[in-house]
Amino acid sequence: MGNNSLGNILKVTSFGESHGAAVGCIIEGMPAGLTINIAAMQEAVNLRKTNQSAFASARNEEDTIEIISGVYENKTLGTPICILIKNTDAKSADYTNIATTYRPNHADYTTHAKYGIRDYRGGGRSSIRITAPLVAAGALALQLIEHIYADVNIQSYVYQIGNASMSEEEKASYFTDNQIFGNEVRCPSAKTTENILTEIATAKNNGDTLGGCIQTTITNLPVGIGEPIFAKLQSALGAAMLSINTVKGFEYGEGFTASTKNGSQHNDEFAISNNTIHTKTNNSGGIQGGISNGMPIIFRTAFKPISSITKAQQTINENGDNIAIEIKGRHDVCAVPRAIPIVNAYTAIVLADLILQNKLSKI
Amino acid sequence: MGNNSLGNILKVTSFGESHGAAVGCIIEGMPAGLTINIAAMQEAVNLRKTNQSAFASARNEEDTIEIISGVYENKTLGTPICILIKNTDAKSADYTNIATTYRPNHADYTTHAKYGIRDYRGGGRSSIRITAPLVAAGALALQLIEHIYADVNIQSYVYQIGNASMSEEEKASYFTDNQIFGNEVRCPSAKTTENILTEIATAKNNGDTLGGCIQTTITNLPVGIGEPIFAKLQSALGAAMLSINTVKGFEYGEGFTASTKNGSQHNDEFAISNNTIHTKTNNSGGIQGGISNGMPIIFRTAFKPISSITKAQQTINENGDNIAIEIKGRHDVCAVPRAIPIVNAYTAIVLADLILQNKLSKI
Amino acid sequence: MGNNSLGNILKVTSFGESHGAAVGCIIEGMPAGLTINIAAMQEAVNLRKTNQSAFASARNEEDTIEIISGVYENKTLGTPICILIKNTDAKSADYTNIATTYRPNHADYTTHAKYGIRDYRGGGRSSIRITAPLVAAGALALQLIEHIYADVNIQSYVYQIGNASMSEEEKASYFTDNQIFGNEVRCPSAKTTENILTEIATAKNNGDTLGGCIQTTITNLPVGIGEPIFAKLQSALGAAMLSINTVKGFEYGEGFTASTKNGSQHNDEFAISNNTIHTKTNNSGGIQGGISNGMPIIFRTAFKPISSITKAQQTINENGDNIAIEIKGRHDVCAVPRAIPIVNAYTAIVLADLILQNKLSKI
Amino acid sequence: MGNNSLGNILKVTSFGESHGAAVGCIIEGMPAGLTINIAAMQEAVNLRKTNQSAFASARNEEDTIEIISGVYENKTLGTPICILIKNTDAKSADYTNIATTYRPNHADYTTHAKYGIRDYRGGGRSSIRITAPLVAAGALALQLIEHIYADVNIQSYVYQIGNASMSEEEKASYFTDNQIFGNEVRCPSAKTTENILTEIATAKNNGDTLGGCIQTTITNLPVGIGEPIFAKLQSALGAAMLSINTVKGFEYGEGFTASTKNGSQHNDEFAISNNTIHTKTNNSGGIQGGISNGMPIIFRTAFKPISSITKAQQTINENGDNIAIEIKGRHDVCAVPRAIPIVNAYTAIVLADLILQNKLSKI
Repeated sequence: MGNNSLGNILKVTSFGESHGAAVGCIIEGMPAGLTINIAAMQEAVNLRKTNQSAFASARNEEDTIEIISGVYENKTLGTPICILIKNTDAKSADYTNIATTYRPNHADYTTHAKYGIRDYRGGGRSSIRITAPLVAAGALALQLIEHIYADVNIQSYVYQIGNASMSEEEKASYFTDNQIFGNEVRCPSAKTTENILTEIATAKNNGDTLGGCIQTTITNLPVGIGEPIFAKLQSALGAAMLSINTVKGFEYGEGFTASTKNGSQHNDEFAISNNTIHTKTNNSGGIQGGISNGMPIIFRTAFKPISSITKAQQTINENGDNIAIEIKGRHDVCAVPRAIPIVNAYTAIVLADLILQNKLSKI
Repeated sequence: MGNNSLGNILKVTSFGESHGAAVGCIIEGMPAGLTINIAAMQEAVNLRKTNQSAFASARNEEDTIEIISGVYENKTLGTPICILIKNTDAKSADYTNIATTYRPNHADYTTHAKYGIRDYRGGGRSSIRITAPLVAAGALALQLIEHIYADVNIQSYVYQIGNASMSEEEKASYFTDNQIFGNEVRCPSAKTTENILTEIATAKNNGDTLGGCIQTTITNLPVGIGEPIFAKLQSALGAAMLSINTVKGFEYGEGFTASTKNGSQHNDEFAISNNTIHTKTNNSGGIQGGISNGMPIIFRTAFKPISSITKAQQTINENGDNIAIEIKGRHDVCAVPRAIPIVNAYTAIVLADLILQNKLSKI
Repeated sequence: MGNNSLGNILKVTSFGESHGAAVGCIIEGMPAGLTINIAAMQEAVNLRKTNQSAFASARNEEDTIEIISGVYENKTLGTPICILIKNTDAKSADYTNIATTYRPNHADYTTHAKYGIRDYRGGGRSSIRITAPLVAAGALALQLIEHIYADVNIQSYVYQIGNASMSEEEKASYFTDNQIFGNEVRCPSAKTTENILTEIATAKNNGDTLGGCIQTTITNLPVGIGEPIFAKLQSALGAAMLSINTVKGFEYGEGFTASTKNGSQHNDEFAISNNTIHTKTNNSGGIQGGISNGMPIIFRTAFKPISSITKAQQTINENGDNIAIEIKGRHDVCAVPRAIPIVNAYTAIVLADLILQNKLSKI
Repeated sequence: MGNNSLGNILKVTSFGESHGAAVGCIIEGMPAGLTINIAAMQEAVNLRKTNQSAFASARNEEDTIEIISGVYENKTLGTPICILIKNTDAKSADYTNIATTYRPNHADYTTHAKYGIRDYRGGGRSSIRITAPLVAAGALALQLIEHIYADVNIQSYVYQIGNASMSEEEKASYFTDNQIFGNEVRCPSAKTTENILTEIATAKNNGDTLGGCIQTTITNLPVGIGEPIFAKLQSALGAAMLSINTVKGFEYGEGFTASTKNGSQHNDEFAISNNTIHTKTNNSGGIQGGISNGMPIIFRTAFKPISSITKAQQTINENGDNIAIEIKGRHDVCAVPRAIPIVNAYTAIVLADLILQNKLSKI
């Protein structure tokens, strides 16, 4: 039956295929009366666009968002907001050679087996392109969050691509948006950025691709956000991140490293200063019992390398023949930097939803 | 508003607090006519029980499951199945000393801040005890899975506790249930088990606690299970695991390591032999595009150390006083082995739900 | 897959069969911190009980409610509230003679055909007994409503049984609870009550049964309650009423009569007095566009006669044999008066849910 | 938070305002591989269009459906199907005079009070125009039903407008679609049609409007459709009908009349002939215990008169001034005939959803 929605109260429902008429989404549950900033929504979408760096896909989409419903005189009506982005540069012909081939690590085979039919053009529904309108929805969700809690900030950056990585010490630093968006790999460390660009150049030369990792920090989120038992903050964030194509792992706070620590090392002692409760350390990543504790929320998401490589690979086709394939077309060498706006958008949708839910926690 | 349910079609809804009258759950969506094996359900619950090893909590609950509804003459009726487990050894008095104290890394503070009230006895709703009936539900979900696909197998084991860990090579082996359940740490490697027991003994002596990691393998799951976009198999499994108290990370297939690989290294080439499509490697962890591809599903879950340590810690109380605390009571040194049945149960519920959903994928 | 829940944010999920261990429900979404009045919940349940009049079933259940979870020191915790009512006077033996017979107008045949199995004892899940815990949940929902809007009042009475009916003029009057609950038919008109009792006596003598109609009025509900498009106030109320066994019709405001009127007759003109907006008439029944308009909400629910008659009837059994049946056992002659607390409870649950939803309508 | 969806597994989510860019919907849960008949979808939408009779609104919309996603080479993909209908003849200027006026019986006041903002143009989200894409969705749902159960037929006709009504005997007859669609009032009785046209002419002359009633019959639906407790077939159908603007009442089988009958009169005895179980009468309207019993499903829906009358009315404006209003614009005198495709569409969506749900009832 599928599950095309992110969120429960604030619910964003995705529709569209890569090479259909359009990709889009509906936002339900947005309260009425919010003045919306469409330019900011468009700007977020633009950050996700292809063709912005030497290592990204050359597909050239304008990705102009159209708001079909739910907004009147720049204010939300409390009715569903439909966002549409037309597919204008869809070159379906690029894909006819793979119409009957199952590309390794793509969703071609599993989609075909599950549904008995698939729109092979550009990956159809499995294309990362379907996230474009969701990024717009996320930007709007962020505007709702900022209306409710003015100081909440969501920030993501690339800390690793391939084997080039920032150190743990570096990751503990504070960065400005300018530091992150000042380069095309979205990495705030100049040294690591240099290493990453070298990795990417090598991979590109080899007809190969790269994955990487993103760290996200949410600051100034008040205590109380997250809904036990099955919509704990980490569970809702993790589910959202793991629904992004190419994501292979998620951890928050100390993450996997926590499993090697003693309780006395990992535990965050509480303290109070200036009448504000805080923890002395933040190994918890800002979440305890699935509920935000007022400290920064910190999580990391791991992305596998892009599956479309130009190197020759063995695979099979729909007839079950063993064949060789070299994937042409307009593909990214490394899409992790382009995932930043997606991670931020999904984070904003999850947070906005849980913030609304939390309004009903107490009488 | 909370979210107390796991699953969508097969939906398990949890209720109960650690020291209330009972903990329980309702299973909706179970098809009618399934002959149930209550003994197997009870056996799964027993594996989760406390007081089974020197390093587990001494709370001594019988944990006898009662089936209140939905079953008649040992068959499911197609109506909601209510499972109840009474709380019989709840010593609330143990907790009066922490009634107004926020224990570090526990949900005390966040729960209180969110709801304005909390049942402090045994962690109330945040207690891992609420998973006992869910383990029974998971065992029943597994019976449904086995009715539909007789050969599906879910197997989890501890591969690391503290700094004692199996090697990657060892983890790639096949193990029998006897190897896993033959020792109290649920680790199939004799050598690692020995190291783990040493780690645990040290931690116990120090009044400290330990975390660890579990690997889960699902074999013989047919191709086609998992619902794009937001109920992808990895997303549904990840959300379930991340909703377990103390879980800090989740990865599947190559996981975080995939982020360091080239596409040509990570990609799994398709091949066909004996008319069966398979991949030559399984770096994908059996999932592509959020849908099972017929290969084993492999994922790993990381648990932080238990928060209740007897070592002295600094914290605050409800009045905002900085105080010191030493947590007494009946607590585990390391609860990861006891998490095995929980991981298996949640996995079974997620799979059963997605298997039912998949029945509606095609006309 | 079934649908056992009423409500969306405040969600009440039913479980249990008539002759199983217990009937019960879970209430999710109840905000934390509400001081609950258990006595009032029990009182509502008592009003639904059998054996309270000469024409009601002689089944004698204590129907004592047990609160299993979600409440601590008499206050809601914000966690699921499980309510249990044990089945103590379940005489399953009464039903063995109908174990393989499809009673006319009962759910025996359809249940068996749908599920391939049924718990025939007392109607199993189709028994009206499953509403007992829902009545308790409704009483609690009412307490939440009263906490939010102190003056809201829900009142239902029987205005017709068989062919004895109050006039339209009488129905337009205001009645006290004492007038309604002062007699066993829950009809506030003395004259009609007399006629109803005569109808019932005749039906009882004939081994026959009777249906009837209930009118419900909700007063002091503020403007704004109801969620377009598919949870309009009338739609949510209608769905709830139509889910009660034996209900055959639902109308609100002028109802079916409105279909015979001109717009100029039916329309309610707006006016303002004492700074309060109201309508001069209330043919709308207090709802416009699916949203309450501040006037009294008025609706009527029609109940068919009880299906269990002692008169001989032709039917078939599971083998497909044409057989005759005379239904013995402890059945009502007319259950409409006993439906009053059910109607009120479902109304309260629907309202409480929509009131919570409405809290999120505006920024 | 709103509820914009009809259905649970097959879920149709509405979006759009009357005078926004477009109205539309998303269909989720449609199984993959269904060959779709777009012409039949367009034909259903055309039946709903305005300007088809002397007594209908003169708004002249092409109402051409666009399928944005979910369909490839004329087959469903198993992904969300987005249907869009552009608003091309939206004359917003017609509505500026009522921008600040609350029209009697319209949703103007309640919408404004609930959301603090409203799109007054053409009723915004409250316009019946939003049903146009839902009618297309219903036509597609019907195609799915017909794929699963080839003989299922949904038929609705007008049996009453104002005080002109078919007799009970006439309503018991069988009619062809030609008889129903052969005239512009969608009434299969020539005599009643004549009377209805007279009623309409009179109302039009008086600047007034009319309501009416529709009877719907579903034939050849197999036994087993409907999901207890809260998605009983009558409850799901009733909720859908009551969500249509202007509907004031719903009844099935004998409906309100059943409340005046004895059990021995109302009960439908079971019989078996040609190995087929049926009931001798059908007072139940084809539903017992919320589940279809194989007999025709019969229900009736009552519509109030259109609220927009040209006669002068008293009302208030946003400032709270008592004012007089005469509603101009392009409005229907009687919209009940145009409701036929809406009733049929909602019925098809409800049925298709419950048919899919029923596939999971048994192991």
